[in-house]
Amino acid sequence: MKCRKCENKASVHMRQHKLALCKEHYLEWVPEQTARFIKKYEMFTPNEKILVAVSGGKDSLSLWDILVRLGYQVDGLYLGLGIDGGINYSHESQRLAEKFANENNLKLHVVDIEKEYGHSIPVLSESSHRGHGKPCAVCGLAKRHEMNRIARDLGYDVLATGHNLDDEAAVLFGNTLTWSGDYLLRQGPVLAGAEGLARKVKPLCRFYEREMTAYAIARGIEYIYDECPFADGSQSIFYKESLNLLETARPGAKLIFYLSFLEAKKAGNLFIERSVGHAHLHPCPRCGQPTSTPDFCSFCRMIEKAQTEAAE
Amino acid sequence: MKCRKCENKASVHMRQHKLALCKEHYLEWVPEQTARFIKKYEMFTPNEKILVAVSGGKDSLSLWDILVRLGYQVDGLYLGLGIDGGINYSHESQRLAEKFANENNLKLHVVDIEKEYGHSIPVLSESSHRGHGKPCAVCGLAKRHEMNRIARDLGYDVLATGHNLDDEAAVLFGNTLTWSGDYLLRQGPVLAGAEGLARKVKPLCRFYEREMTAYAIARGIEYIYDECPFADGSQSIFYKESLNLLETARPGAKLIFYLSFLEAKKAGNLFIERSVGHAHLHPCPRCGQPTSTPDFCSFCRMIEKAQTEAAE
Repeated sequence: MKCRKCENKASVHMRQHKLALCKEHYLEWVPEQTARFIKKYEMFTPNEKILVAVSGGKDSLSLWDILVRLGYQVDGLYLGLGIDGGINYSHESQRLAEKFANENNLKLHVVDIEKEYGHSIPVLSESSHRGHGKPCAVCGLAKRHEMNRIARDLGYDVLATGHNLDDEAAVLFGNTLTWSGDYLLRQGPVLAGAEGLARKVKPLCRFYEREMTAYAIARGIEYIYDECPFADGSQSIFYKESLNLLETARPGAKLIFYLSFLEAKKAGNLFIERSVGHAHLHPCPRCGQPTSTPDFCSFCRMIEKAQTEAAE
Repeated sequence: MKCRKCENKASVHMRQHKLALCKEHYLEWVPEQTARFIKKYEMFTPNEKILVAVSGGKDSLSLWDILVRLGYQVDGLYLGLGIDGGINYSHESQRLAEKFANENNLKLHVVDIEKEYGHSIPVLSESSHRGHGKPCAVCGLAKRHEMNRIARDLGYDVLATGHNLDDEAAVLFGNTLTWSGDYLLRQGPVLAGAEGLARKVKPLCRFYEREMTAYAIARGIEYIYDECPFADGSQSIFYKESLNLLETARPGAKLIFYLSFLEAKKAGNLFIERSVGHAHLHPCPRCGQPTSTPDFCSFCRMIEKAQTEAAE
């Protein structure tokens, strides 16, 4: 099959778009599409300072690469989670994030959870009721807190994450299976900011995971291939597999599922309108971040509990 | 495993309810639950005249059996569709519907589409743009029209159909994959009636398909085992298979999916309220049924087209 834009052999074929491109044109197409999504969903403007959360994986490093190529002011944030899992996971992912930043002369902030708070994510999860044998809930809480903190402290307007279509469709699928109203009404490519909270955006939300893999490889980005060792058997992987079966039977089903959800929200003929709720927030007395829980925020309560237990 | 209600061996085990029952208690439990659903969703009262649409399959014959046992005034309607499919499908299903009615001294109305309108469903679908190689859309249109017609002409208040949880969850799943607002806002166990249109209800909507099979077998109801020969490869079977994979991994997932949808609709914190739309209806000049299309209703236009073509 030939590239649609030139005479060369196509190297990426996107069935859902009926589009095949050679490597060179694919490397043009992905940033062009990203620029289109940034504009369509009003994610940010060239004047805003962007912080991209970088895990060392294909999505976040590609996002950083794309945003820099599009001319945005964008620095990186790497959070050291202290996860080993027999594959030196955190160490290797940090090495690759730093390598990418160095090679491209980009600024990368590194925050190590253990250095900052005394305990790694796996240790924190042991002392938390959020654990349930898996540190994923604790990890999500810590990542959200630290991303918000760094963005606020260093004056970034926008927090960008590398969530791709497979990630977003899986979250949507899980929330739909139980019709979780609060989550469904919040989900989208942009979560508005508030006092002390940067706006959150997902510029890759319309790219299939395989498209981001193809981009990272075609661009020659060295990324960590392994998933987090704790991801195995997770809910999100189960939802991704379910959606992949649908996608195999009907190419494009995943994209239609996600996009028609966004369209239904925008059209206003299915879901109620809700003033997206940063209401009832007050600053946490310990960290100052806006929180809806009384007194300390969830993150600070978790840290306090772990520190108290360690001192006993 | 023992029956929860007596010392006998359980013959039906409902994992999602953590409930196992012997044959005798299962045959009590299903009508009790049905009575509960009829009340919960305000389907009908003992004073109303009910017409149950009977296909000769396990669901509709069981529904008829259950409603009679619960003491309701309920007659049957069998629609002869003229489908053979190499298995004598319509003929055999009619024989079994008539056998059930005779053995239980019940009144069964029989309407034969070909005798009434000159053409069987497969022939009608050939002259209709709704066909797409499959008569399912034409069949659905004809069944809805004829059920409405008979209910109105014979003075029934309520039309009851044997849709089970697997049917309802599959429809919901399909409409969710494309976020079809109109269909999502209409779907439920009860569709309100209007001038010239009987209320439509689905009293079995919370029973798994396998539970209805178990009921029909335990009750000794002879039903047609084959699916309609045109059902193979249909959308609804594809959605049922997808949901069965989820159900296998998480027993109860299908029920939670359907029930949490109904709860979200009722709670009013996710979907918009919509005055369920029998608005803008006028009577079809040919059959008198309420329709939203200008001039003749879709069914009468289809019949007219087929009759014109046959005369040419």
